[in-house]
Amino acid sequence: MEVRIIGLTDLPLIKENDNISKLILDSLKKSSIDIDDGDVFVIAETIISKAEGTKIDLKSIKPSSKAYKIAKKTGKDPKLVESIINESNEILKVGPDFIISETKHGFVCANAGIDESNVEIGQATPIPIDPDKSAEIIRKELSEATNKQVVVIISDTQGRPFREGAVGVTIGISGMDPLWNRKGEIDLYGRTLQTTNIAVADELAASASIVMGQANEAIPVVLIKGLSYTKKLSSISKTAKSLIRPKKYDVFR
Amino acid sequence: MEVRIIGLTDLPLIKENDNISKLILDSLKKSSIDIDDGDVFVIAETIISKAEGTKIDLKSIKPSSKAYKIAKKTGKDPKLVESIINESNEILKVGPDFIISETKHGFVCANAGIDESNVEIGQATPIPIDPDKSAEIIRKELSEATNKQVVVIISDTQGRPFREGAVGVTIGISGMDPLWNRKGEIDLYGRTLQTTNIAVADELAASASIVMGQANEAIPVVLIKGLSYTKKLSSISKTAKSLIRPKKYDVFR
Repeated sequence: MEVRIIGLTDLPLIKENDNISKLILDSLKKSSIDIDDGDVFVIAETIISKAEGTKIDLKSIKPSSKAYKIAKKTGKDPKLVESIINESNEILKVGPDFIISETKHGFVCANAGIDESNVEIGQATPIPIDPDKSAEIIRKELSEATNKQVVVIISDTQGRPFREGAVGVTIGISGMDPLWNRKGEIDLYGRTLQTTNIAVADELAASASIVMGQANEAIPVVLIKGLSYTKKLSSISKTAKSLIRPKKYDVFR
Repeated sequence: MEVRIIGLTDLPLIKENDNISKLILDSLKKSSIDIDDGDVFVIAETIISKAEGTKIDLKSIKPSSKAYKIAKKTGKDPKLVESIINESNEILKVGPDFIISETKHGFVCANAGIDESNVEIGQATPIPIDPDKSAEIIRKELSEATNKQVVVIISDTQGRPFREGAVGVTIGISGMDPLWNRKGEIDLYGRTLQTTNIAVADELAASASIVMGQANEAIPVVLIKGLSYTKKLSSISKTAKSLIRPKKYDVFR
C-alpha cells in the first residue's frame, strides 16, 4: 500500500500565455513517467495566475482611504491593502499584521490569497480568477494527451484559525469530488460510520506541498500516484466550491 | 524528487498494553522495509489511546445536568456529552449537531477529539493523555532499534472552520520541529520571504491520512520516506504544542 508524491523538477519559470499542460507533458516525457487512470496533478496557484496573466502591478494601484486606514492598522503597504479589498467580498478581521477576508471565490483566508513571493519585485499574484475552470481546462488537455482519466487540483498555501502555520489546500479541482463522504461505511468493529466526511482534496494539496516547498525549489507541479479512491470519487461536476462551508453553518464568523 | 507514503498493512488490531514500536518493527521486517535517517512515522491517535488503555466506557458515565442540556441542543448521547465536557478546558460553540471545545491539551476541535469509530461498541477513544510524550517514547524505541534518527507524529482527523470536511493533523510529535519557518529564505526572484511559516507536521499528517483511510482499511501507521528537510528540522525539544495558536492571537474565538 504505497502512494508516490513526485515533484516535476524541470519546469521552466512560467510566463504569461504559457501552456501549462504542454509543459507538464514535456516534463513527464523527459522523466519517463507514465500516467495511470486516477493519477492526481497538483498545481501551485501561482503559476496558474502567471500563465493567465492575472498578476497585480502594485505600482499602478491607487489606494482608497479605506485602504490607507487598514494599512495603518496592519503595517501593510496601502497598495497591497487596496488589492486585497479589490479581491474580497468582505473583510472579516483586521489585526496588527493580518487581514482576513472572504475572497470573491468565497474562500476565507489571509490577504485574499494575494502572494508576493515567487513573482517579480513590485508585482503580486492574486488567486486565479476561476481556479475550478483552470483545473478543468488542464485536466481535459492532460486526459486527452495521455488517454487516461486524471484529476487536476489547483493548490494554495493558507493559514488556519486555531493552529499555527500554513498548509496546502485546494482552491480548484476537476475530475474528482473533493470530499469523500464515508457515512454509512462499516468500521473495524462493524459499526456504521456516522459523520466521516474527509476533505481528500485538501489532504492531497497538503501532500503535494511537502514536495513543492515554498521558496526557491521551483517545483510548482506535483504528481500523486497510487491512490485507490480517486477513481471511485471521479466526478467532472464537483468543484472546490464544495470545500467552502456555507456562511450560515459557519459558527466562527 | 519523490516522497513515498507507505501504509503498514499487517498490524494487528491494537489492544491495551500492546507495544506499538515492537509491532511496527515486526511489520517493517515482514515487508522488508529499511529505515533511513529522517524517515517519518505517522501513527493514528486511536491506537495510541487503545494501547495506553484510555478508552472511555460510555455505559459507566453519569451525565451532569449541563451534559443533558447540551445533549438536548445537539442531539448527542448525554454520556458522550459528559465525556466531551470532561476532556475539555472550555466549550466554545454548541450547535444542532456539534460541540466545539478546547481540549485539555489546548486543541480546538469538535467533540474534544473523542472518537466513536474503530473501537468496540459502547466505548469511545479520547485523544491520548499526552500525545507528545507518547510520540517521544515510540521515537526513542524506533530510533534505538533501527539505529536511525526518525520522527514520530501522532495524528488525528479534525474538521476546520470555514472549510468542509476533516483532514489529518498532528497532535503529538517527537524528533522534529512541527513548523518550518522559512522567513529570511530567498525566493525564485531573489526576494526575501517575509512570513512563510509552514505547518509541515500537519501536512505530513494529512499525507498519511490519504493512505490510512478512515473506516475499515486498518492502516493505523504510515511511513513517509524521501523528505529532504526532516533532518534540518530535527529537534527533540519541540512538541505539537507549537501548532496551537495562543488564545490571545486567536481572532476567531
